[in-house]
Amino acid sequence: MTTPSPGIAYTITIRCQIENRPGMLGSIATAIGDSGGDIGAIDIVRVDRNHITRDITVRVQDELHGDRIVRRISVLPGVTVTNVSDRVFLMHQGGKLTVHGRVQVKNRDDLSLIYTPGVARVCRAIARDEENAFSLTIKKNSLAVVSDGSAVLGLGNLGAAAAIPVMEGKAVLFKELADIDAFPICLKSQDPDVIVATVEQIAPVFGAINLEDIAAPKCFAIEEQLVEQLDIPVMHDDQHGTAVVVLAGLRNAATLVGKRLDQMRVVVSGAGVAGTAIIFNLLNAGIAEITAVDRNGILNATEDQDLTPIQRQIAERTNREGRRGSLADALVGADVFIGVSTGNILTPDMVRAMARDAIVFALANPVPEGDPEMLAQHARVVATGRSDSPNQINNALSFPGIFRGALDVRAARITQRMRLAAAEGLAGVIGKDELTEEYIVPSVFNRDIVPAIAAAVARAARAEGVARAEIGG
Amino acid sequence: MTTPSPGIAYTITIRCQIENRPGMLGSIATAIGDSGGDIGAIDIVRVDRNHITRDITVRVQDELHGDRIVRRISVLPGVTVTNVSDRVFLMHQGGKLTVHGRVQVKNRDDLSLIYTPGVARVCRAIARDEENAFSLTIKKNSLAVVSDGSAVLGLGNLGAAAAIPVMEGKAVLFKELADIDAFPICLKSQDPDVIVATVEQIAPVFGAINLEDIAAPKCFAIEEQLVEQLDIPVMHDDQHGTAVVVLAGLRNAATLVGKRLDQMRVVVSGAGVAGTAIIFNLLNAGIAEITAVDRNGILNATEDQDLTPIQRQIAERTNREGRRGSLADALVGADVFIGVSTGNILTPDMVRAMARDAIVFALANPVPEGDPEMLAQHARVVATGRSDSPNQINNALSFPGIFRGALDVRAARITQRMRLAAAEGLAGVIGKDELTEEYIVPSVFNRDIVPAIAAAVARAARAEGVARAEIGG
Repeated sequence: MTTPSPGIAYTITIRCQIENRPGMLGSIATAIGDSGGDIGAIDIVRVDRNHITRDITVRVQDELHGDRIVRRISVLPGVTVTNVSDRVFLMHQGGKLTVHGRVQVKNRDDLSLIYTPGVARVCRAIARDEENAFSLTIKKNSLAVVSDGSAVLGLGNLGAAAAIPVMEGKAVLFKELADIDAFPICLKSQDPDVIVATVEQIAPVFGAINLEDIAAPKCFAIEEQLVEQLDIPVMHDDQHGTAVVVLAGLRNAATLVGKRLDQMRVVVSGAGVAGTAIIFNLLNAGIAEITAVDRNGILNATEDQDLTPIQRQIAERTNREGRRGSLADALVGADVFIGVSTGNILTPDMVRAMARDAIVFALANPVPEGDPEMLAQHARVVATGRSDSPNQINNALSFPGIFRGALDVRAARITQRMRLAAAEGLAGVIGKDELTEEYIVPSVFNRDIVPAIAAAVARAARAEGVARAEIGG
Repeated sequence: MTTPSPGIAYTITIRCQIENRPGMLGSIATAIGDSGGDIGAIDIVRVDRNHITRDITVRVQDELHGDRIVRRISVLPGVTVTNVSDRVFLMHQGGKLTVHGRVQVKNRDDLSLIYTPGVARVCRAIARDEENAFSLTIKKNSLAVVSDGSAVLGLGNLGAAAAIPVMEGKAVLFKELADIDAFPICLKSQDPDVIVATVEQIAPVFGAINLEDIAAPKCFAIEEQLVEQLDIPVMHDDQHGTAVVVLAGLRNAATLVGKRLDQMRVVVSGAGVAGTAIIFNLLNAGIAEITAVDRNGILNATEDQDLTPIQRQIAERTNREGRRGSLADALVGADVFIGVSTGNILTPDMVRAMARDAIVFALANPVPEGDPEMLAQHARVVATGRSDSPNQINNALSFPGIFRGALDVRAARITQRMRLAAAEGLAGVIGKDELTEEYIVPSVFNRDIVPAIAAAVARAARAEGVARAEIGG
């Protein structure tokens, strides 16, 4: 198993006042290297007769590792650590978002145009016909990233305040990748009825709602009710964002290995938020057979398993071959493994038991279901959720384009068909002749992604009759 | 009575295709002038052999007047009107706000720092201590402009969607004048309990709440409950914003005419949202005696008047001299008139009956309680809510600085004492030697205002123990 490599997310800058004599920097560098730190930049801040002040930037494994390195330097003779700063925390100081006017207000005339008295006519125009809000206000392009903080990343139930940085980060991505004006809304209560009621109340100013990091099983009912009750698109990204990217990756992997979706058997490990959406999405995409597995083994509709209502639906729509047993049993002869479960549950034997040209998506984070190098020895195509392996399955590949397409045509909702179209759009960003075992999904920063997905989503919305405007209308 | 002059808020641009022969432009200009339109710019868009296409920008009185001018031009021989655009609506296309990252996300390293995996450590830091949200998220500087659309400007109950342009405009002003990141929240329901519950739910991500355009009497209870229940500043600007500016203007007017606040009798006409707040603010500022008047005459605690609970409180705290009768009766010998009621209710005789050096704030909009020119003949100091008379009492003079000061020290609430300090701070922007009858309040775009008010508010917050941080902390 590879150890997670030190990433930029764990970079600290140590400011040291160092006695001005030969060999000092060497002793510091040695101390850092001996402690497993990886030196990036070394800058001189100040020099006086007796001392040099330097900023030394070091990549570390985690916070404890960083503390250890700082302590190690602190005890060196002639060295005083005067400050330690952490690049992640520096980037978060004061928050990551800002709200600006798109129009200027520098004088009284500007004020008359964008505020009173001019604005009164705009208000009356909307009061006459509420549809005018889509052209004359931010509703045309605004989105709320809504969370109750009940399932923040993989960290669990941290509550509303601790969820803010994730929602802000997502809002930054919406703007950067899809030019959507997104604002974070973190809710005090974690009660499903309160969440639904609150989102309904704040909906008038938003063109779309992205639900985020809401725990299962309540997330399913919350999304369903809001989709039903609001006339703007609502999507829980933890469910559908990942599911769309998985389907896109699977489409390209299938093309690469020469198999058809309707001939493949897929094993999905994990029947939580993402797993559930992946399974339903694959069923809708026409996958021949799915075997769903959770920690108790293969889900099936005949055994007396302890299943949530949605897991029962899964059991009823999967495993038509009536398999029973463990993950290992499920994998025998399977074409595809998709894991959204837990780290290191795949053995080499289990992967070898799959069908020829096996496709393995080991998406558990931060530790995948199997070591990527081991998986690559036994499967033909391997994808993970990690940025340091090929084929990163990242929901940032799908949510910006899906909402961009939905907003472009003022879709009243995001349907299953629109999500299937999004997966096709994303898959199509890589040409058939460009596909390789290590390139089945594009990079998040590929600028073709959002237009491709948005166009596919808008087309599907029009075909299904949920679009209320032409693009740009 | 002066007719409201055509303002920039009613500017239309008429595009005409005109036969290319002498005298055509003259006939168009004559038609516009004869109809009372005021020509601004005339631009040539295109010239071909037979026609010239011109854009003619015209200030008009209102929409009907604009329509009349367009019809008049349309019937001129050799002229075809091809388009009419309205500058206010052009400025509102697509909304007036945008949400941007304060940090850049151009590559994978950026993503690791501001989103996963780096963001996880920031989330954990907030989960450990929620106060960290004030330094590591937008909560430090974010504000919700919340309305239910029940009293939009002077237009009445237009509902949530039609209120959006006002809340957006206010958010633009917050950024431009006080560098606050404000976002509009328009609520579907107009039920007070639902409004309170919803604002409580969305509070975690905001550093402050500006309530706006919520109808009386429910606005009083809504504000009171939210101030009580939230640990961030909440203020209904329709009440307190105007009241602070009125007190500031009155302080300067009193200085100018050489009277003391505690020796003046003030008549307040109108006991609605603004009137109520003005009265309580003046009482707290130590005004000697207030006579409150509504459409039924002088409010008093002894007669059987049809009063709301808050008007009854007013009646109990004002009119200690036991006056009865009409507005005219109230004004006899009064030092100050403050009107937040309805247009053209003051006669020359009524103003002449006031004490020497009378101060008249006729703030009804768009038509003041008395014609400004008439008032200036009989009173020493006159202020209105209009931008085309001296001394415009505009709440944009106060709300940006009040919230700036409250956010700067993480005030838990905005107290009466902080609002009194805000009025003093605003009044002090004009030096004593600069005061004139036509200059008792500064212009909204005077850059000294926000720092002066914010410093005064922050100081008062610290003195009262509601500040939770040093400035910039």
